[in-house]
Amino acid sequence: VDGRQQVMVEALAYLSLYHQEQGNFAGFVPQMARVHDEIMQTGTYWQGEDELAYGARVAWRNNSRCIGRLQWKSLAIHDMRHLQTAEEIYEALVEHIRWATNGGKIRSAISIFAPQVPGEPGIRIWNPQLIRYAGYKNSDGSITGDALLCELTESMRHLGWKGGAGTPFDILPIVIQMPHQAPMLFELPRDIIVEVPLSHPEYSWFADLGLKWHALPVISNMRLEIGGVSYTAAPFNGWYMGTEIGARNLGDVERYNLLPLVASKMGLNIRSDRELWKDRALVELNVAVMSSFARHGVTIIDHHTASRQFMHHQRNEAEAGRPLPADWGWIVPPLSGSATPVFHTSYEDRLLTPNFFAQEDPWRTTTI
Amino acid sequence: VDGRQQVMVEALAYLSLYHQEQGNFAGFVPQMARVHDEIMQTGTYWQGEDELAYGARVAWRNNSRCIGRLQWKSLAIHDMRHLQTAEEIYEALVEHIRWATNGGKIRSAISIFAPQVPGEPGIRIWNPQLIRYAGYKNSDGSITGDALLCELTESMRHLGWKGGAGTPFDILPIVIQMPHQAPMLFELPRDIIVEVPLSHPEYSWFADLGLKWHALPVISNMRLEIGGVSYTAAPFNGWYMGTEIGARNLGDVERYNLLPLVASKMGLNIRSDRELWKDRALVELNVAVMSSFARHGVTIIDHHTASRQFMHHQRNEAEAGRPLPADWGWIVPPLSGSATPVFHTSYEDRLLTPNFFAQEDPWRTTTI
Ligand code: HEM
Ligand code: HEM
Repeated sequence: VDGRQQVMVEALAYLSLYHQEQGNFAGFVPQMARVHDEIMQTGTYWQGEDELAYGARVAWRNNSRCIGRLQWKSLAIHDMRHLQTAEEIYEALVEHIRWATNGGKIRSAISIFAPQVPGEPGIRIWNPQLIRYAGYKNSDGSITGDALLCELTESMRHLGWKGGAGTPFDILPIVIQMPHQAPMLFELPRDIIVEVPLSHPEYSWFADLGLKWHALPVISNMRLEIGGVSYTAAPFNGWYMGTEIGARNLGDVERYNLLPLVASKMGLNIRSDRELWKDRALVELNVAVMSSFARHGVTIIDHHTASRQFMHHQRNEAEAGRPLPADWGWIVPPLSGSATPVFHTSYEDRLLTPNFFAQEDPWRTTTI
Repeated sequence: VDGRQQVMVEALAYLSLYHQEQGNFAGFVPQMARVHDEIMQTGTYWQGEDELAYGARVAWRNNSRCIGRLQWKSLAIHDMRHLQTAEEIYEALVEHIRWATNGGKIRSAISIFAPQVPGEPGIRIWNPQLIRYAGYKNSDGSITGDALLCELTESMRHLGWKGGAGTPFDILPIVIQMPHQAPMLFELPRDIIVEVPLSHPEYSWFADLGLKWHALPVISNMRLEIGGVSYTAAPFNGWYMGTEIGARNLGDVERYNLLPLVASKMGLNIRSDRELWKDRALVELNVAVMSSFARHGVTIIDHHTASRQFMHHQRNEAEAGRPLPADWGWIVPPLSGSATPVFHTSYEDRLLTPNFFAQEDPWRTTTI
């Protein structure tokens, strides 16, 4: 199959889904005819605003790993396909963060930049999320900040970033790379970024650990594919599920690795795994995240409620006669798995498009 | 393929594995010739003691769901294929429990009863585990005991069991069914069953809940398949991993459902999932299990140590040049998943034989 034919097949599949789900059966044939001609002439096609918007929502609905999909219809679309420069895109990202943060009452949104031209590189945002903390390798082998971000932090240095203040929570600049151009660095304005300092409802020493996390998770390195068209820069956000911060970002050994510290402060014996100090520290870290976000008026969902919402979504999808592709290992929360209803459900996974796909880290392939 | 051919293929595969792994290359051809003739004449064959023993150990090694497989070579084999009556089998089960319990220093063992004759029903032990607590449905809809066992408890009543004392921890009798015979009931002698009353190192009220669990988990409803031969009664035990009791048996909503009770006693607000009362209660329930087993000198492993041992097993198997079939969703513990190394590893699953297989619950199919 040549590329053109592949695009045609995908366009056909998506346009038929789109018109069917919207109940607009009459619209399908003329639109498919138009799209067919455009693909024959250019190898791709420009999607209508509504086709784009619906496609992004279905991409969310189709993503097997996301537990938050009950909300799929509520995704706000920022159609930014007309922007032509890295500076303009940077401005749009700033606006995305501001709009989605909404003073703490988080709104789900996606900003969609110009699609990839077939056979050419697409626009890339290097950051895995728009807001991420730097990871610095110290000369003694230890790491300050987010260990997962060490490689990207290093790449940014090579691009000319001077580095931050050297705290464990230095916000990384944004790197935007236009097709066939060098990547460009942009510092985010501090005043648009809401962060939540972490305290604990019972342990007064907790606040003194100086921990915090940002309010808004905006995934910015995935490719959105709709009807054979690839949007390589299409950052999207929902709100956090508490365990993403409390269990994974702060708890994982390969991230902030804070369980030993928290457990020691709690007075637990961290020499004996049998005494479940990791489990106790993990729960209290998550309690701190949930209660701190609540106190600061920032939207967040706990994993029990999220699991229940997902069960609700499952019923919705069954009623709509649609399959529910789901990856059990990602849907089940990393904390207290068996205490959530999703643990006791088995899921079939399958790859449906539209969807979001991982892309190669650009600093590994770029030659500039 | 007719049945005979199927057995031949499986026998060939196992005998070649057996002789290869034992480094006994010369033994393979003559043994295969003998087995070939026996299969041609009878449709099956009688395995040598050592073939049987090694097969049982490999079945354990091959089971994708078991996190305890580092120990696979240490399985003790009780070859009980010569037993002919339900009474004899019952005696052997009592002896199995006694030997494996070993005053608390649990030893892994399997008792293997006569194989299934092709085309005939095999010997069945109805109990999913040799030691299980009854589940009674009360007239008000509530359940006393283990909700998972309600159906079997009910079936046992139909077989003539008078019922136990009506506590939440009444040990079920054993039901043994010989081929083409009616199932028979046997009460286990109380003095061979070690149970651990649960207390908590910090919460003195915990002991007053009157909770306990038995020391020995003996799975008794799975079919052991080795080289085309099926052992439909082949109960096996290891020791408990704490979460099996503290997270699943006592915590699951469909089992003892104790999180609301424990959380209430802890003074937590069980109206608000955001406050993570389930997570806190779950951890303390598991702390109670681990510390109580330790205090009573009964072998038990925590999920952190078990995960680390499994990573060790993974390295062993890689060194031996063998694949490691594993079912991620079963290997990752139900508590604090992401705090264990197995969570961060991806596994390929595949079905290898010898192995243990689920069988239909006999009370659903039996017509007697
Ligand atoms: C509204 C609130 C939302 C919640 C609570 C939520 C929750 C989650 C969680 C917990 C994960 C797993 C993350 C991890 O373990 O790394 C996830 C993954 C994912 N979510 Fe959502 N999500 C939300 C909104 C969204 C939105 C708006 C989109 C896209 C439009 C989305 C798309 C995805 C995708 C593509 C993944 C997989 C990421 C990957 O493969 O690395 N989610 N979500
Ligand atoms: C020595 C200590 C052992 C430990 C700590 C251990 C641990 C576990 C755990 C935690 C599970 C999951 C149970 C569940 O979630 O329901 C499991 C499953 C299993 N284990 Fe082990 N195990 C041990 C010994 C054994 C032995 C001796 C055998 C057989 C010879 C065995 C065979 C199996 C099988 C077949 C399963 C899957 C059961 C099913 O499909 O329902 N294990 N094991």
